[in-house]
Amino acid sequence: MSEFTFHERLARDTVPVADGPLSFVRLMNDRTYPWLVLVPRRSDLREMHDLTATEQGQLMVEITAASRCLERLFASDKINVGALGNLVPQLHIHVIARFTSDPAWPGPVWGVAPPEPYGSSDLATRVEVLRVAFHQEV
Amino acid sequence: MSEFTFHERLARDTVPVADGPLSFVRLMNDRTYPWLVLVPRRSDLREMHDLTATEQGQLMVEITAASRCLERLFASDKINVGALGNLVPQLHIHVIARFTSDPAWPGPVWGVAPPEPYGSSDLATRVEVLRVAFHQEV
Repeated sequence: MSEFTFHERLARDTVPVADGPLSFVRLMNDRTYPWLVLVPRRSDLREMHDLTATEQGQLMVEITAASRCLERLFASDKINVGALGNLVPQLHIHVIARFTSDPAWPGPVWGVAPPEPYGSSDLATRVEVLRVAFHQEV
Repeated sequence: MSEFTFHERLARDTVPVADGPLSFVRLMNDRTYPWLVLVPRRSDLREMHDLTATEQGQLMVEITAASRCLERLFASDKINVGALGNLVPQLHIHVIARFTSDPAWPGPVWGVAPPEPYGSSDLATRVEVLRVAFHQEV
């Protein structure tokens, strides 16, 4: 495996939570939504369909684990999953807990509310809770 | 399998293209974007993670086939894949060909431009081209 480098926007906007077999699991530093980002360890890829069939199967396992841990921890109304990558070309998949009371509901979250970073203590707590929950799901 | 019924909005906004092993493949009747919608034949489900692991694997095969056929037919700049379902609770997955020249770029497409239905002859042609291309990919 060649050295992995995060796109500068993913490095800036997200923090590490856990390492799945295929993907780095990161938290979007925006307390408006509980929002995980999965980044498969293939820095040369842009599209989900560029993964091998085996990697795609593993990605689905990790999307499911991320979805279930958000649903369980936050009692969300809906999980949104998206692979867009129009602005950040490095392959990454959003898994977002949505609430009928959130500021973007029922639209998608991207580009609606400016990100509100967590306070440092809240961030550390949230990362730890998510890390434990993710490892329970995979 | 119990009788399958499309949510009224999916029935109204999309037209049939092909039947995959898991999902009905439908075309969004909006000529602004080449836009497929996969609807797994489980009308009781809301979330991708409610599918079994086997069904999730098949869904990924169908997402990949849909993505590749859009990319090949339309020489798109990016494929966007999304499972949102905030408005239409029946499980469905969007696979959308995006262009740097499209009206929503680089944002997501949902809720940006009002849908522009195809003319009936254009619609029939597009469905047929997509139907053949999808079956070549799966």
